[in-house]
Amino acid sequence: MSLTAHTAAPPVVPDIVAGVDLGGTNTSVGLVDPAGKQLVRSVFPTHARESADEFARRLTGVIGDLTKRLPPGAAVRGIGIASPAANGSRGTIESPANLGWGTVNIRDLVRRHLDVPVAVTNDANAALAGERLYGAARGMRNVIMLTLGTGLGAGIAVDGRIVQGQNGAAGEFGHVTLDPAGRVCGCGRRGCVETYVSASGLRRTVVELLADRLEESALRDVSFREVTAAMVSRLAADADPIAQEAVGATGRHLGLLVANLAAAFDPEAVVLYGGLVNAGDLLLAPARASFERNALPRYRASVRILVSSLNNGEAAVLGASSHVRHFLAGESPL
Amino acid sequence: MSLTAHTAAPPVVPDIVAGVDLGGTNTSVGLVDPAGKQLVRSVFPTHARESADEFARRLTGVIGDLTKRLPPGAAVRGIGIASPAANGSRGTIESPANLGWGTVNIRDLVRRHLDVPVAVTNDANAALAGERLYGAARGMRNVIMLTLGTGLGAGIAVDGRIVQGQNGAAGEFGHVTLDPAGRVCGCGRRGCVETYVSASGLRRTVVELLADRLEESALRDVSFREVTAAMVSRLAADADPIAQEAVGATGRHLGLLVANLAAAFDPEAVVLYGGLVNAGDLLLAPARASFERNALPRYRASVRILVSSLNNGEAAVLGASSHVRHFLAGESPL
Repeated sequence: MSLTAHTAAPPVVPDIVAGVDLGGTNTSVGLVDPAGKQLVRSVFPTHARESADEFARRLTGVIGDLTKRLPPGAAVRGIGIASPAANGSRGTIESPANLGWGTVNIRDLVRRHLDVPVAVTNDANAALAGERLYGAARGMRNVIMLTLGTGLGAGIAVDGRIVQGQNGAAGEFGHVTLDPAGRVCGCGRRGCVETYVSASGLRRTVVELLADRLEESALRDVSFREVTAAMVSRLAADADPIAQEAVGATGRHLGLLVANLAAAFDPEAVVLYGGLVNAGDLLLAPARASFERNALPRYRASVRILVSSLNNGEAAVLGASSHVRHFLAGESPL
Repeated sequence: MSLTAHTAAPPVVPDIVAGVDLGGTNTSVGLVDPAGKQLVRSVFPTHARESADEFARRLTGVIGDLTKRLPPGAAVRGIGIASPAANGSRGTIESPANLGWGTVNIRDLVRRHLDVPVAVTNDANAALAGERLYGAARGMRNVIMLTLGTGLGAGIAVDGRIVQGQNGAAGEFGHVTLDPAGRVCGCGRRGCVETYVSASGLRRTVVELLADRLEESALRDVSFREVTAAMVSRLAADADPIAQEAVGATGRHLGLLVANLAAAFDPEAVVLYGGLVNAGDLLLAPARASFERNALPRYRASVRILVSSLNNGEAAVLGASSHVRHFLAGESPL
């Protein structure tokens, strides 16, 4: 019924960037507007065994498909990629523990398929930036973000600034030793935190419990490879005793880690993020109790354990999109 | 033979402050000029069982005695105190693990006896400041200082700034858990780093080895309380097998700690400081080998393990004196 005004302004081309959270299991992509709103998003499996170039081809294909769902004329101005083992200044991913890539220049590989600016950043730093901009860590100056995915990553803010380290490799808490005689890690050592406190660590705890205990469990009918954190969380919520104990043991290890991080960094909060956190209080209650037991008194009242307030996958996608916007504007990132 | 000129300038009153390194075993005091030179110094036992007020009385007595050795007219303009568990903004020492004081306001106690400005700072941060101003860490922006005394303290610089944490309690690596089932710690928990990597940890390792091994050792004739780090270092240098193994085991734990710190902070160097370091290569060679074994490859080449290049006790004294100079000038400390 409305008339098309003959003086209509030209259609507004939205200011869009892509944020990518490249994980060991899944990759999340969102096309994000300047207010930090994801207009469209997609999640696809990463396929640890495919080459990085093949991955880059698929990623840019997904970005192309997502772009078609935007108003005509919309184009992605840049791509921010959040990844484990990222070197932002070189644009590389360097021997990621959960992907068989060795060191690859993901920036150049992606630009072969889609010629827009690409900025690479550490996944946990991206998640921390997203959380500080839009989530549970808003306004915090001393805060640690733990990303509990296939592995364990971390982003650290000290006095309002991201801790990078001398070579951009700070925050590798996944490879801090929890038990020198403990589980073999993908990095070649034993007892690293992420062999316990991660989705893959949870899976190992499940089968360790299947060996040790006699309780019945639906997990006795599932192969090691089939066990997922989501499955264990669901079974734990349904009172499966092995699943509950596995989640509880993971929480206790997590609480000890947070106690150690409190002693090292004296943060305001440790924010938890990633699929494992979906287990909710079954994970958090033992984590908080273990933190209380293991932390020095001075940290018990002052350090909070919080859960990301952004949807799963969103913090790193939003942080990566913010990162590439800073890159496009020639500013240093958050 | 020289004539006193009748137009002589008035005697120059030197610009002096006192730097104090308050340790669990000994306290070092130096009177320091603006160039960071200790003009006179003294070391006296801390006496863990005496009251903080009694300690303050003795400390100001020592400062008074030292002042008398300076040119007539010289006066101490301020006192910088470096202490474990220090809270600089309040001027307090808060329940130090190795002193029976509870929480005391050392600033006010000292000023009761000597009415000059007093500035309190964390001992490890003071040592780090001293080392960055005058020692092995000169010019480093990402560096960790480990103080291996009765306990284990740490100072951390990230991107050129001291990491304080939200409540000034960062860097308590002494109470990071190395082994959840390990030795009982003064803090009430088990397996803290400092129950292994400190002078008191070395003493415990000695008697553990005396229980476990059969080798002859001069340490079999010494009581637990009499064992000192200096004694063990000297015996290790003389090829006493228990002393050598105790120093070696301490070095291996230290190397694992440095590997974990590398993963967390990605520093340029970790600088070791304190009495334990006098063991030299008997400690450092196993520490470096253990670091190589335990660190992720990316840190092996980039993180150096260095020894303080200042005389023993000097880094924290110089850092404390620099701290009170900044305080007197109304500037924020390094």
